[in-house]
Amino acid sequence: MNVWLSEEHTAGYAVHWRLRDIIHVEQTPYQELAIVDTHEWGRALILDSIVQTTEVDEFIYHEMIAHVPMMVHPNPVKVLIIGGGDGGTLREVLKYDSVDRVDLVEIDKQVIEACRKYLPTISAGFSDDRANIIIQDGLKYVKEAECKYDVVIIDSSDPVGPAVELFSAEFYRDIYELLHEDGIMTVQAESPAFYGDVFARVYHNMNTIFPRAGVYLACVPSYVSGFWAFGIASKQYHPERAAAGRKPVTGLRYYTTDIHQAAFVLPPFVQKLLER
Amino acid sequence: MNVWLSEEHTAGYAVHWRLRDIIHVEQTPYQELAIVDTHEWGRALILDSIVQTTEVDEFIYHEMIAHVPMMVHPNPVKVLIIGGGDGGTLREVLKYDSVDRVDLVEIDKQVIEACRKYLPTISAGFSDDRANIIIQDGLKYVKEAECKYDVVIIDSSDPVGPAVELFSAEFYRDIYELLHEDGIMTVQAESPAFYGDVFARVYHNMNTIFPRAGVYLACVPSYVSGFWAFGIASKQYHPERAAAGRKPVTGLRYYTTDIHQAAFVLPPFVQKLLER
Repeated sequence: MNVWLSEEHTAGYAVHWRLRDIIHVEQTPYQELAIVDTHEWGRALILDSIVQTTEVDEFIYHEMIAHVPMMVHPNPVKVLIIGGGDGGTLREVLKYDSVDRVDLVEIDKQVIEACRKYLPTISAGFSDDRANIIIQDGLKYVKEAECKYDVVIIDSSDPVGPAVELFSAEFYRDIYELLHEDGIMTVQAESPAFYGDVFARVYHNMNTIFPRAGVYLACVPSYVSGFWAFGIASKQYHPERAAAGRKPVTGLRYYTTDIHQAAFVLPPFVQKLLER
Repeated sequence: MNVWLSEEHTAGYAVHWRLRDIIHVEQTPYQELAIVDTHEWGRALILDSIVQTTEVDEFIYHEMIAHVPMMVHPNPVKVLIIGGGDGGTLREVLKYDSVDRVDLVEIDKQVIEACRKYLPTISAGFSDDRANIIIQDGLKYVKEAECKYDVVIIDSSDPVGPAVELFSAEFYRDIYELLHEDGIMTVQAESPAFYGDVFARVYHNMNTIFPRAGVYLACVPSYVSGFWAFGIASKQYHPERAAAGRKPVTGLRYYTTDIHQAAFVLPPFVQKLLER
Protein backbone atom coordinates (compact mmCIF):
# COMPACT_ATOMS: atom_id res chain seq x y z
CA MET A 1 0.00 0.00 0.00
CA ASN A 2 1.04 3.56 -0.61
CA VAL A 3 0.89 4.70 3.03
CA TRP A 4 2.49 7.92 4.25
CA LEU A 5 2.94 9.39 7.72
CA SER A 6 2.24 13.12 7.59
CA GLU A 7 4.35 14.95 10.14
CA GLU A 8 2.78 18.39 10.50
CA HIS A 9 5.31 20.76 12.01
CA THR A 10 3.64 24.11 11.48
CA ALA A 11 0.55 25.40 9.72
CA GLY A 12 2.58 25.60 6.52
CA TYR A 13 5.23 22.87 6.59
CA ALA A 14 4.95 19.09 6.76
CA VAL A 15 7.26 16.15 6.16
CA HIS A 16 5.82 12.95 4.69
CA TRP A 17 7.42 9.58 5.31
CA ARG A 18 6.38 6.56 3.30
CA LEU A 19 5.84 3.53 5.51
CA ARG A 20 6.51 -0.11 4.78
CA ASP A 21 4.64 -1.15 7.89
CA ILE A 22 2.97 0.18 11.01
CA ILE A 23 4.47 -2.21 13.51
CA HIS A 24 2.79 -1.08 16.70
CA VAL A 25 0.37 1.62 17.85
CA GLU A 26 -0.97 2.29 21.32
CA GLN A 27 -2.43 5.16 23.30
CA THR A 28 -0.49 5.60 26.53
CA PRO A 29 -1.62 7.84 29.41
CA TYR A 30 0.62 10.55 27.94
CA GLN A 31 0.67 10.28 24.16
CA GLU A 32 -0.02 8.21 21.07
CA LEU A 33 2.97 5.92 20.59
CA ALA A 34 3.81 4.16 17.33
CA ILE A 35 6.68 2.14 15.92
CA VAL A 36 6.78 2.21 12.14
CA ASP A 37 9.03 0.81 9.45
CA THR A 38 9.89 3.59 6.98
CA HIS A 39 10.99 3.12 3.39
CA GLU A 40 14.42 4.65 3.75
CA TRP A 41 15.11 5.46 7.41
CA GLY A 42 14.64 2.07 9.06
CA ARG A 43 12.27 1.75 11.97
CA ALA A 44 11.20 4.88 13.80
CA LEU A 45 9.60 5.84 17.10
CA ILE A 46 6.65 8.20 16.56
CA LEU A 47 4.96 10.12 19.40
CA ASP A 48 1.78 12.05 18.58
CA SER A 49 2.66 11.75 14.88
CA ILE A 50 6.11 13.36 15.27
CA VAL A 51 9.25 11.34 14.46
CA GLN A 52 11.37 11.01 17.60
CA THR A 53 14.18 8.88 16.26
CA THR A 54 14.98 6.73 13.23
CA GLU A 55 17.36 3.80 13.07
CA VAL A 56 19.31 5.41 10.21
CA ASP A 57 20.22 8.76 11.74
CA GLU A 58 19.61 8.35 15.49
CA PHE A 59 23.35 8.22 16.09
CA ILE A 60 23.74 11.93 15.30
CA TYR A 61 21.35 13.20 17.94
CA HIS A 62 22.32 10.64 20.57
CA GLU A 63 26.06 11.10 20.13
CA MET A 64 25.79 14.88 20.29
CA ILE A 65 23.52 15.09 23.34
CA ALA A 66 25.63 12.55 25.26
CA HIS A 67 29.30 12.85 24.29
CA VAL A 68 29.59 16.64 24.51
CA PRO A 69 28.89 16.76 28.29
CA MET A 70 30.59 13.41 28.91
CA MET A 71 33.79 14.70 27.30
CA VAL A 72 33.72 18.10 29.03
CA HIS A 73 33.58 16.38 32.42
CA PRO A 74 36.98 14.83 33.20
CA ASN A 75 35.55 11.83 35.05
CA PRO A 76 31.76 11.32 34.89
CA VAL A 77 30.64 8.61 37.32
CA LYS A 78 26.96 9.26 38.07
CA VAL A 79 24.69 10.34 35.22
CA LEU A 80 21.00 11.25 35.17
CA ILE A 81 18.93 11.14 31.98
CA ILE A 82 15.47 12.77 32.03
CA GLY A 83 13.31 11.32 29.27
CA GLY A 84 15.27 9.37 26.70
CA GLY A 85 12.87 6.46 26.78
CA ASP A 86 14.17 5.10 23.47
CA GLY A 87 17.47 4.29 25.20
CA GLY A 88 19.81 5.89 22.63
CA THR A 89 21.30 8.45 25.02
CA LEU A 90 21.67 5.77 27.68
CA ARG A 91 23.56 3.54 25.22
CA GLU A 92 26.03 6.35 24.48
CA VAL A 93 26.59 7.28 28.15
CA LEU A 94 27.27 3.65 29.04
CA LYS A 95 30.21 3.60 26.62
CA TYR A 96 32.30 5.34 29.32
CA ASP A 97 34.08 2.99 31.73
CA SER A 98 34.11 5.73 34.37
CA VAL A 99 30.31 5.56 34.66
CA ASP A 100 29.09 3.38 37.51
CA ARG A 101 25.39 4.32 37.43
CA VAL A 102 22.95 5.93 35.05
CA ASP A 103 19.52 6.83 36.41
CA LEU A 104 17.03 7.19 33.56
CA VAL A 105 13.77 8.87 34.57
CA GLU A 106 11.04 8.39 31.98
CA ILE A 107 7.42 9.35 32.61
CA ASP A 108 5.94 6.89 30.10
CA LYS A 109 6.94 3.29 30.72
CA GLN A 110 5.25 2.19 27.50
CA VAL A 111 7.86 4.11 25.48
CA ILE A 112 10.62 2.04 27.07
CA GLU A 113 8.71 -1.20 26.62
CA ALA A 114 8.00 -0.53 22.94
CA CYS A 115 11.58 0.55 22.19
CA ARG A 116 13.04 -2.48 24.00
CA LYS A 117 10.82 -4.72 21.92
CA TYR A 118 10.97 -3.04 18.49
CA LEU A 119 14.14 -0.89 18.42
CA PRO A 120 16.78 -3.22 19.89
CA THR A 121 19.85 -1.43 18.49
CA ILE A 122 18.75 1.85 20.06
CA SER A 123 17.55 0.46 23.37
CA ALA A 124 20.45 -1.94 23.99
CA GLY A 125 21.62 -0.07 27.11
CA PHE A 126 18.56 -0.97 29.16
CA SER A 127 20.00 -4.42 29.87
CA ASP A 128 23.26 -3.00 31.28
CA ASP A 129 23.65 -3.52 35.05
CA ARG A 130 24.62 0.12 35.50
CA ALA A 131 21.30 1.34 34.07
CA ASN A 132 18.68 2.15 36.72
CA ILE A 133 15.26 2.82 35.20
CA ILE A 134 12.84 5.00 37.16
CA ILE A 135 9.30 5.44 35.85
CA GLN A 136 8.35 8.85 37.18
CA ASP A 137 7.69 12.43 36.18
CA GLY A 138 11.14 14.02 35.75
CA LEU A 139 9.89 17.25 37.35
CA LYS A 140 8.97 15.38 40.51
CA TYR A 141 12.14 13.29 40.49
CA VAL A 142 14.51 16.25 40.43
CA LYS A 143 12.66 17.90 43.35
CA GLU A 144 12.92 14.83 45.53
CA ALA A 145 16.15 13.06 44.58
CA GLU A 146 18.91 13.04 47.16
CA CYS A 147 21.87 11.71 45.20
CA LYS A 148 24.23 13.97 43.28
CA TYR A 149 25.22 13.68 39.64
CA ASP A 150 28.20 14.60 37.47
CA VAL A 151 26.17 14.91 34.28
CA VAL A 152 22.42 15.43 33.74
CA ILE A 153 20.97 15.06 30.22
CA ILE A 154 17.46 16.27 29.40
CA ASP A 155 16.46 14.15 26.42
CA SER A 156 12.88 15.31 26.02
CA SER A 157 10.38 15.40 23.21
CA ASP A 158 9.15 18.75 21.88
CA PRO A 159 7.82 21.28 24.42
CA VAL A 160 4.18 20.31 24.04
CA GLY A 161 2.20 17.82 26.14
CA PRO A 162 4.19 16.02 28.86
CA ALA A 163 7.51 17.71 28.03
CA VAL A 164 6.58 21.39 28.31
CA GLU A 165 7.86 21.96 31.87
CA LEU A 166 11.16 20.31 31.00
CA PHE A 167 12.16 23.59 29.32
CA SER A 168 11.45 25.78 32.38
CA ALA A 169 13.88 27.73 34.56
CA GLU A 170 12.45 26.09 37.67
CA PHE A 171 13.36 22.66 36.34
CA TYR A 172 16.89 23.78 35.54
CA ARG A 173 17.21 25.20 39.06
CA ASP A 174 16.27 21.83 40.56
CA ILE A 175 18.86 20.15 38.35
CA TYR A 176 21.47 22.70 39.42
CA GLU A 177 20.91 21.54 42.99
CA LEU A 178 21.32 17.89 41.99
CA LEU A 179 24.66 18.43 40.29
CA HIS A 180 28.03 18.11 41.98
CA GLU A 181 29.97 21.37 42.20
CA ASP A 182 31.63 20.61 38.85
CA GLY A 183 28.49 19.18 37.24
CA ILE A 184 27.19 19.71 33.70
CA MET A 185 23.72 19.63 32.13
CA THR A 186 22.73 19.28 28.47
CA VAL A 187 19.30 19.68 26.95
CA GLN A 188 17.87 19.21 23.49
CA ALA A 189 16.88 22.72 22.44
CA GLU A 190 14.88 22.32 19.21
CA SER A 191 15.48 23.87 15.79
CA PRO A 192 16.74 27.47 15.73
CA ALA A 193 15.15 27.73 12.26
CA PHE A 194 11.67 26.52 13.25
CA TYR A 195 11.52 27.12 16.99
CA GLY A 196 13.85 30.05 17.63
CA ASP A 197 11.78 31.13 20.63
CA VAL A 198 12.18 27.76 22.41
CA PHE A 199 15.87 27.72 21.57
CA ALA A 200 16.34 31.23 22.99
CA ARG A 201 14.29 30.42 26.11
CA VAL A 202 16.41 27.34 26.89
CA TYR A 203 19.54 29.47 26.71
CA HIS A 204 18.17 32.30 28.84
CA ASN A 205 16.81 29.93 31.48
CA MET A 206 20.16 28.13 31.74
CA ASN A 207 22.05 31.41 31.75
CA THR A 208 20.18 32.82 34.75
CA ILE A 209 21.03 29.79 36.87
CA PHE A 210 24.43 28.40 35.82
CA PRO A 211 27.76 30.26 35.75
CA ARG A 212 28.42 29.00 32.22
CA ALA A 213 25.81 28.41 29.52
CA GLY A 214 26.21 27.78 25.83
CA VAL A 215 24.52 26.28 22.82
CA TYR A 216 25.85 23.98 20.15
CA LEU A 217 24.53 22.78 16.81
CA ALA A 218 24.29 19.61 14.78
CA CYS A 219 22.55 18.55 11.59
CA VAL A 220 19.96 15.83 12.27
CA PRO A 221 18.35 14.97 8.90
CA SER A 222 15.19 13.39 10.33
CA TYR A 223 14.35 16.40 12.54
CA VAL A 224 12.53 19.35 11.03
CA SER A 225 14.95 21.61 9.11
CA GLY A 226 17.89 19.36 10.05
CA PHE A 227 19.31 22.29 11.98
CA TRP A 228 19.28 21.19 15.62
CA ALA A 229 20.42 22.90 18.81
CA PHE A 230 21.49 21.68 22.21
CA GLY A 231 21.92 23.74 25.35
CA ILE A 232 24.73 23.08 27.79
CA ALA A 233 25.12 24.56 31.27
CA SER A 234 28.11 24.04 33.49
CA LYS A 235 29.03 24.89 37.07
CA GLN A 236 32.76 24.93 36.48
CA TYR A 237 34.18 23.48 33.25
CA HIS A 238 34.27 25.41 30.01
CA PRO A 239 31.75 23.52 27.82
CA GLU A 240 33.18 24.44 24.43
CA ARG A 241 35.85 21.77 24.32
CA ALA A 242 36.61 18.31 25.67
CA ALA A 243 38.62 18.08 28.90
CA ALA A 244 42.37 18.16 28.29
CA GLY A 245 43.80 14.82 27.25
CA ARG A 246 40.40 13.12 27.10
CA LYS A 247 40.01 10.71 24.18
CA PRO A 248 36.57 9.83 22.81
CA VAL A 249 35.41 6.23 22.84
CA THR A 250 35.97 4.43 19.54
CA GLY A 251 33.35 3.68 16.91
CA LEU A 252 31.50 7.00 16.96
CA ARG A 253 30.07 8.20 13.65
CA TYR A 254 29.35 11.89 14.32
CA TYR A 255 31.18 13.05 17.46
CA THR A 256 34.86 13.89 17.49
CA THR A 257 36.65 16.43 19.69
CA ASP A 258 37.00 18.64 16.59
CA ILE A 259 33.24 18.38 15.91
CA HIS A 260 32.71 19.29 19.58
CA GLN A 261 34.53 22.61 19.14
CA ALA A 262 33.06 23.30 15.70
CA ALA A 263 29.51 22.73 17.00
CA PHE A 264 29.85 25.75 19.30
CA VAL A 265 30.62 28.13 16.43
CA LEU A 266 27.32 29.91 15.83
CA PRO A 267 26.25 31.76 12.69
CA PRO A 268 25.39 35.41 13.44
CA PHE A 269 21.67 34.85 12.83
CA VAL A 270 21.64 32.15 15.55
CA GLN A 271 23.75 34.30 17.88
CA LYS A 272 21.21 37.06 17.40
CA LEU A 273 18.36 34.80 18.60
CA LEU A 274 20.25 34.46 21.90
CA GLU A 275 20.66 38.21 22.30
CA ARG A 276 16.98 39.02 22.17
CA MET B 1 -7.52 27.56 -0.31
CA ASN B 2 -5.58 24.86 1.42
CA VAL B 3 -2.96 24.37 -1.31
CA TRP B 4 0.30 22.50 -0.74
CA LEU B 5 3.35 22.00 -2.92
CA SER B 6 4.54 18.41 -2.61
CA GLU B 7 8.30 18.21 -3.00
CA GLU B 8 9.05 14.56 -3.65
CA HIS B 9 12.71 13.89 -2.89
CA THR B 10 12.81 10.12 -2.94
CA ALA B 11 10.34 7.27 -3.22
CA GLY B 12 9.80 7.49 0.52
CA TYR B 13 10.33 11.09 1.61
CA ALA B 14 8.52 14.30 0.69
CA VAL B 15 8.31 17.82 2.05
CA HIS B 16 5.01 19.70 1.79
CA TRP B 17 4.89 23.49 1.70
CA ARG B 18 1.61 25.32 2.13
CA LEU B 19 1.22 28.08 -0.44
CA ARG B 20 -0.45 31.46 -0.07
CA ASP B 21 -0.26 32.03 -3.78
CA ILE B 22 1.14 30.64 -7.02
CA ILE B 23 2.55 33.83 -8.46
CA HIS B 24 3.92 32.61 -11.75
CA VAL B 25 4.30 29.32 -13.65
CA GLU B 26 5.83 28.72 -17.06
CA GLN B 27 7.39 25.88 -18.98
CA THR B 28 10.82 26.91 -20.24
CA PRO B 29 12.85 24.92 -22.81
CA TYR B 30 14.66 23.35 -19.83
CA GLN B 31 12.27 22.99 -16.92
CA GLU B 32 9.00 23.95 -15.28
CA LEU B 33 9.60 27.23 -13.48
CA ALA B 34 7.37 28.61 -10.74
CA ILE B 35 7.46 31.44 -8.25
CA VAL B 36 5.26 30.78 -5.23
CA ASP B 37 4.45 32.59 -2.01
CA THR B 38 4.78 30.13 0.89
CA HIS B 39 3.09 30.46 4.28
CA GLU B 40 6.25 30.74 6.34
CA TRP B 41 9.29 30.97 4.06
CA GLY B 42 8.43 33.99 1.93
CA ARG B 43 8.50 33.68 -1.82
CA ALA B 44 10.36 30.75 -3.37
CA LEU B 45 11.76 29.73 -6.75
CA ILE B 46 10.58 26.24 -7.73
CA LEU B 47 12.11 24.27 -10.63
CA ASP B 48 10.42 21.00 -11.61
CA SER B 49 8.60 21.04 -8.24
CA ILE B 50 11.82 21.28 -6.19
CA VAL B 51 12.44 24.34 -3.98
CA GLN B 52 15.58 26.13 -5.20
CA THR B 53 15.63 29.04 -2.82
CA THR B 54 13.31 30.76 -0.33
CA GLU B 55 13.42 34.39 0.75
CA VAL B 56 13.68 33.40 4.41
CA ASP B 57 16.75 31.15 4.35
CA GLU B 58 18.44 31.85 1.00
CA PHE B 59 21.18 33.79 2.79
CA ILE B 60 22.64 30.60 4.27
CA TYR B 61 23.27 28.83 0.97
CA HIS B 62 24.32 31.95 -0.91
CA GLU B 63 26.70 33.19 1.77
CA MET B 64 28.34 29.79 2.12
CA ILE B 65 28.81 29.07 -1.59
CA ALA B 66 30.20 32.59 -2.21
CA HIS B 67 32.13 33.84 0.80
CA VAL B 68 34.18 30.70 1.45
CA PRO B 69 36.08 30.91 -1.90
CA MET B 70 36.03 34.73 -1.92
CA MET B 71 37.71 34.79 1.50
CA VAL B 72 40.27 32.08 0.69
CA HIS B 73 41.46 34.07 -2.30
CA PRO B 74 43.43 37.12 -1.10
CA ASN B 75 42.26 39.40 -3.92
CA PRO B 76 39.48 38.08 -6.19
CA VAL B 77 38.98 40.35 -9.20
CA LYS B 78 37.34 38.21 -11.92
CA VAL B 79 34.63 35.76 -10.90
CA LEU B 80 32.62 33.26 -12.94
CA ILE B 81 29.28 31.89 -11.75
CA ILE B 82 27.81 28.90 -13.61
CA GLY B 83 24.06 28.70 -13.04
CA GLY B 84 22.89 30.87 -10.16
CA GLY B 85 20.03 32.33 -12.19
CA ASP B 86 18.25 33.56 -9.05
CA GLY B 87 21.08 36.04 -8.52
CA GLY B 88 21.77 35.31 -4.84
CA THR B 89 25.35 34.15 -5.36
CA LEU B 90 25.99 37.12 -7.66
CA ARG B 91 24.70 39.50 -4.97
CA GLU B 92 27.15 38.06 -2.42
CA VAL B 93 30.17 38.11 -4.78
CA LEU B 94 29.49 41.75 -5.67
CA LYS B 95 29.90 42.72 -2.00
CA TYR B 96 33.70 42.61 -2.53
CA ASP B 97 35.24 45.88 -3.71
CA SER B 98 38.12 43.95 -5.27
CA VAL B 99 35.75 42.42 -7.85
CA ASP B 100 35.71 44.22 -11.18
CA ARG B 101 33.69 41.72 -13.21
CA VAL B 102 31.39 38.79 -12.58
CA ASP B 103 30.39 36.66 -15.55
CA LEU B 104 27.20 34.73 -14.80
CA VAL B 105 26.46 31.94 -17.28
CA GLU B 106 22.90 30.66 -17.00
CA ILE B 107 21.36 28.29 -19.52
CA ASP B 108 17.75 29.34 -18.89
CA LYS B 109 17.12 33.06 -19.37
CA GLN B 110 13.58 32.70 -18.10
CA VAL B 111 14.93 31.88 -14.61
CA ILE B 112 16.75 35.21 -14.53
CA GLU B 113 13.73 37.08 -15.88
CA ALA B 114 11.36 35.56 -13.34
CA CYS B 115 13.72 36.13 -10.41
CA ARG B 116 14.38 39.74 -11.43
CA LYS B 117 10.66 40.33 -11.53
CA TYR B 118 9.44 38.37 -8.50
CA LEU B 119 12.44 37.93 -6.15
CA PRO B 120 13.98 41.40 -6.07
CA THR B 121 15.94 41.03 -2.82
CA ILE B 122 17.69 37.92 -4.16
CA SER B 123 18.28 39.15 -7.71
CA ALA B 124 19.44 42.68 -6.81
CA GLY B 125 22.94 42.11 -8.21
CA PHE B 126 21.78 41.83 -11.84
CA SER B 127 21.59 45.61 -12.08
CA ASP B 128 25.21 46.10 -10.95
CA ASP B 129 27.52 47.38 -13.72
CA ARG B 130 30.09 44.72 -12.88
CA ALA B 131 27.61 41.89 -13.59
CA ASN B 132 27.89 40.44 -17.09
CA ILE B 133 25.06 38.02 -17.88
CA ILE B 134 25.66 35.34 -20.50
CA ILE B 135 22.76 33.11 -21.56
CA GLN B 136 24.52 29.94 -22.60
CA ASP B 137 25.12 26.33 -21.60
CA GLY B 138 27.83 26.44 -18.92
CA LEU B 139 29.45 23.32 -20.37
CA LYS B 140 29.94 25.06 -23.70
CA TYR B 141 31.03 28.34 -22.12
CA VAL B 142 33.88 26.83 -20.14
CA LYS B 143 35.21 25.03 -23.24
CA GLU B 144 35.31 28.21 -25.30
CA ALA B 145 36.02 31.07 -22.90
CA GLU B 146 39.38 32.77 -23.22
CA CYS B 147 39.52 34.96 -20.11
CA LYS B 148 40.89 33.73 -16.81
CA TYR B 149 39.18 33.82 -13.42
CA ASP B 150 40.22 34.02 -9.80
CA VAL B 151 37.10 32.28 -8.50
CA VAL B 152 34.58 30.02 -10.27
CA ILE B 153 31.34 29.10 -8.49
CA ILE B 154 29.10 26.30 -9.77
CA ASP B 155 25.68 27.19 -8.42
CA SER B 156 23.63 24.48 -10.09
CA SER B 157 20.35 22.79 -9.42
CA ASP B 158 20.28 19.08 -8.55
CA PRO B 159 22.11 16.69 -10.91
CA VAL B 160 19.08 15.80 -12.99
CA GLY B 161 17.92 17.45 -16.21
CA PRO B 162 20.06 20.35 -17.45
CA ALA B 163 22.49 20.26 -14.50
CA VAL B 164 23.73 16.66 -14.68
CA GLU B 165 26.97 17.34 -16.56
CA LEU B 166 27.84 20.15 -14.15
CA PHE B 167 28.98 17.47 -11.71
CA SER B 168 31.36 15.73 -14.13
CA ALA B 169 35.16 15.52 -14.02
CA GLU B 170 35.36 16.82 -17.58
CA PHE B 171 33.57 20.01 -16.58
CA TYR B 172 35.89 20.51 -13.62
CA ARG B 173 38.87 20.01 -15.94
CA ASP B 174 37.64 22.78 -18.22
CA ILE B 175 37.23 25.05 -15.22
CA TYR B 176 40.74 24.21 -14.03
CA GLU B 177 42.02 25.56 -17.35
CA LEU B 178 40.00 28.76 -16.93
CA LEU B 179 41.39 29.54 -13.49
CA HIS B 180 44.46 31.63 -12.80
CA GLU B 181 47.34 29.72 -11.25
CA ASP B 182 46.03 30.56 -7.77
CA GLY B 183 42.36 30.11 -8.67
CA ILE B 184 39.61 28.48 -6.62
CA MET B 185 36.37 26.69 -7.53
CA THR B 186 33.33 25.91 -5.34
CA VAL B 187 30.37 23.75 -6.19
CA GLN B 188 27.11 22.94 -4.44
CA ALA B 189 27.44 19.24 -3.62
CA GLU B 190 24.00 18.14 -2.41
CA SER B 191 23.03 16.47 0.87
CA PRO B 192 25.46 13.89 2.29
CA ALA B 193 22.46 12.35 4.07
CA PHE B 194 20.23 11.99 0.97
CA TYR B 195 22.67 12.02 -1.92
CA GLY B 196 25.91 10.64 -0.49
CA ASP B 197 26.88 9.25 -3.90
CA VAL B 198 26.67 12.67 -5.60
CA PHE B 199 28.55 14.28 -2.74
CA ALA B 200 31.32 11.66 -2.95
CA ARG B 201 31.52 11.95 -6.74
CA VAL B 202 31.96 15.72 -6.59
CA TYR B 203 34.86 15.28 -4.19
CA HIS B 204 36.55 12.54 -6.21
CA ASN B 205 36.18 14.43 -9.47
CA MET B 206 37.70 17.57 -7.94
CA ASN B 207 40.43 15.58 -6.26
CA THR B 208 41.67 13.98 -9.48
CA ILE B 209 42.13 17.39 -11.12
CA PHE B 210 43.07 19.96 -8.47
CA PRO B 211 46.06 19.86 -6.08
CA ARG B 212 43.75 20.65 -3.15
CA ALA B 213 40.15 19.52 -2.74
CA GLY B 214 37.88 19.65 0.26
CA VAL B 215 34.28 19.67 1.33
CA TYR B 216 32.46 21.84 3.81
CA LEU B 217 29.02 21.73 5.40
CA ALA B 218 26.19 24.04 6.30
CA CYS B 219 22.63 23.64 7.53
CA VAL B 220 20.13 24.94 4.97
CA PRO B 221 16.65 24.40 6.46
CA SER B 222 14.74 24.55 3.17
CA TYR B 223 16.90 21.93 1.45
CA VAL B 224 16.15 18.26 2.01
CA SER B 225 17.60 17.06 5.35
CA GLY B 226 19.03 20.53 6.02
CA PHE B 227 22.47 18.94 5.89
CA TRP B 228 24.15 20.53 2.86
CA ALA B 229 27.62 20.08 1.35
CA PHE B 230 29.83 22.21 -0.84
CA GLY B 231 32.95 21.12 -2.68
CA ILE B 232 35.96 23.40 -2.97
CA ALA B 233 39.01 22.88 -5.18
CA SER B 234 42.06 25.08 -5.18
CA LYS B 235 45.21 25.34 -7.25
CA GLN B 236 47.29 26.91 -4.51
CA TYR B 237 45.60 28.29 -1.38
CA HIS B 238 44.56 26.10 1.50
CA PRO B 239 40.73 26.24 1.36
CA GLU B 240 40.02 25.52 5.00
CA ARG B 241 40.48 29.05 6.27
CA ALA B 242 40.21 32.65 5.11
CA ALA B 243 43.37 34.31 3.77
CA ALA B 244 45.49 35.85 6.53
CA GLY B 245 44.24 39.25 7.65
CA ARG B 246 41.17 39.15 5.42
CA LYS B 247 38.03 40.58 7.05
CA PRO B 248 34.57 39.55 5.86
CA VAL B 249 32.18 42.16 4.54
CA THR B 250 29.73 43.43 7.14
CA GLY B 251 26.10 42.45 7.48
CA LEU B 252 26.43 38.71 6.87
CA ARG B 253 24.04 36.46 8.76
CA TYR B 254 25.66 33.01 8.44
CA TYR B 255 29.29 33.36 7.29
CA THR B 256 32.08 34.32 9.65
CA THR B 257 35.74 33.28 9.45
CA ASP B 258 35.09 31.00 12.44
CA ILE B 259 32.12 29.40 10.64
CA HIS B 260 34.44 28.97 7.63
CA GLN B 261 36.86 26.84 9.63
CA ALA B 262 34.13 24.98 11.52
CA ALA B 263 32.36 24.08 8.27
CA PHE B 264 35.34 21.98 7.19
CA VAL B 265 35.20 19.78 10.28
CA LEU B 266 33.50 16.60 9.06
CA PRO B 267 31.74 13.98 11.16
CA PRO B 268 33.31 10.53 10.66
CA PHE B 269 30.26 9.21 8.76
CA VAL B 270 30.67 12.01 6.19
CA GLN B 271 34.44 11.49 6.01
CA LYS B 272 33.74 7.83 5.31
CA LEU B 273 31.60 8.71 2.28
CA LEU B 274 34.67 10.43 0.81
CA GLU B 275 36.90 7.41 1.37
CA ARG B 276 34.78 5.00 -0.64
